[in-house]
Amino acid sequence: MEIKEITLNELDTEKFISEKGQEISSLVGEGLSINALSGGVDSAVVTMLCHRALGDRLKTYFIDTGLMREKEPEHIVSLFKDMGVPVELIDAQKTFFDALKGQTDPEKKREAITRSFYKDVFGKLVRDTGARYLLQGTNFTDIEETVAGIKRQHNILEQLGIDPEQSYGYRVIEPLIQLRKSAIRKLGKSLGLPEELYNRPPFPGPALAARVIGEVTPERVKLVRNATTIVEEELSQSKAFQYLAILHEDRVTGIRDGKRDYGFQIEIRCWESTDAKIGSPTRLSYDILDRLAERITTEVPGVVSVTYNITKKPPSTIEAI
Amino acid sequence: MEIKEITLNELDTEKFISEKGQEISSLVGEGLSINALSGGVDSAVVTMLCHRALGDRLKTYFIDTGLMREKEPEHIVSLFKDMGVPVELIDAQKTFFDALKGQTDPEKKREAITRSFYKDVFGKLVRDTGARYLLQGTNFTDIEETVAGIKRQHNILEQLGIDPEQSYGYRVIEPLIQLRKSAIRKLGKSLGLPEELYNRPPFPGPALAARVIGEVTPERVKLVRNATTIVEEELSQSKAFQYLAILHEDRVTGIRDGKRDYGFQIEIRCWESTDAKIGSPTRLSYDILDRLAERITTEVPGVVSVTYNITKKPPSTIEAI
Repeated sequence: MEIKEITLNELDTEKFISEKGQEISSLVGEGLSINALSGGVDSAVVTMLCHRALGDRLKTYFIDTGLMREKEPEHIVSLFKDMGVPVELIDAQKTFFDALKGQTDPEKKREAITRSFYKDVFGKLVRDTGARYLLQGTNFTDIEETVAGIKRQHNILEQLGIDPEQSYGYRVIEPLIQLRKSAIRKLGKSLGLPEELYNRPPFPGPALAARVIGEVTPERVKLVRNATTIVEEELSQSKAFQYLAILHEDRVTGIRDGKRDYGFQIEIRCWESTDAKIGSPTRLSYDILDRLAERITTEVPGVVSVTYNITKKPPSTIEAI
Repeated sequence: MEIKEITLNELDTEKFISEKGQEISSLVGEGLSINALSGGVDSAVVTMLCHRALGDRLKTYFIDTGLMREKEPEHIVSLFKDMGVPVELIDAQKTFFDALKGQTDPEKKREAITRSFYKDVFGKLVRDTGARYLLQGTNFTDIEETVAGIKRQHNILEQLGIDPEQSYGYRVIEPLIQLRKSAIRKLGKSLGLPEELYNRPPFPGPALAARVIGEVTPERVKLVRNATTIVEEELSQSKAFQYLAILHEDRVTGIRDGKRDYGFQIEIRCWESTDAKIGSPTRLSYDILDRLAERITTEVPGVVSVTYNITKKPPSTIEAI
């Protein structure tokens, strides 16, 4: 089946909300549907769109992987609570860190996170609640990238530990599949989401694990989380497309109180881009770069060195892993 | 014995060359003396100062460790040949790479290089030639740093594999020990060295091995050597104190011809400093940074990412290892 894009200009948000809502409601009927909210634009919009259509026939979970930004799980749940949308917070940190233990290969790390998320945690919730409908924030770019072979196509039911043969009746609903990110942001605004949600910068699926080179441990995630907080505070006014901090596995020599300190290095990336397909480093002022280096080496324990990435995409990618 | 500094202002170069030359000549007498030229300011000045004083009572070697910059060994030897100073080039690449094999710890790598240099290669030359005088470019800052505990004090004879008990008669002569770098440069100019020698930017003792994080192999030195050539070409006009390229051990995701390329990262450092004790990153223009990233990712095979270090010293150090 070919999927036809609804462009930003074509999108009539009120009409879309009303028609898509009726479609979802009649599909789900008296059944129970379930979705996972990550705080990203796509899942936030799915949550609000489907909450409006389904009310308490929708159960929304926020899975705390231990890989989120500072106070992010509680903050997102509280934002939705304020809008009258109940979200259950699931602490799954141990499951994720156990799965990541000893893994240093980027692909193995991604697999461990995907498996923990879909099979071990969300899959169990799906099976336990007896939900028959899974709502996913898949968008038009995801579909394009699957066709282009950039991302692997996921068989969502298999990932959830559900055997399609034995589990007749499960259904995945992807209400945003005809929209690109810009149209989804417009829809989010129209749905009454706060700007920090509908204009949220892109954040990788594996969350902060994508920003730890080498093994992902609670200690190393804590370091990159601290650095991320600083980078986001300092660059939120930059109007850049995306900005991030990466913890390297390599250690470098530094000096503290006149003594050698073999410490950590943090890499900062800040991107000018419209669609993430190509990008170039933001020309941040050296005053800002100085301040970033100063804060990170002072506030993040053990960091003695900070770099700024100066490579375009391609040949770089937005994230390091 | 306390060593008294001769400051840049105090230094009368002609007087120093004449008096120090006579002192060295009478010390060495009819014996043979030996020194190792690395191409750095200190060893270049020692070579020229002692060549003038000793003529063919001095034998100078350039040891090709395999860790030098592009064409550096041949170039330095040829510069001295043009000035009438014979220098013997010793190919010791295998010795060094064998010693570095499998070493990833910075201190172990330094030890392997020091041992290869002093004991295996230069020590053998000292013993084989029967030289009784070793000329070294130790300077006043080296002495200060030894006292301050920043660098380890070296027992040079032990490092050369010479037992002081059994080898009575060996003598180490350090003619530059009262001078700091700026005074040594002034002396070099006065000795008629070309500016590229007396104004040579500082270069670490372990050479490019100090700029390879992780294992130092011929292949990895070749990568950092290529990047170094580009950085030196692009930044030679910057008037910066020092500039360098570092090959990381961490690999990062890149994209080439639309496909994932898990490649290398090069870090550039460029320092404003007067004495290397403190320093800050040069505020290079983004046009230069763009050009550096473009050239390195295009010309150095496998590199997909380039960063610029934005940390001051302290807490960073000039070099990474």
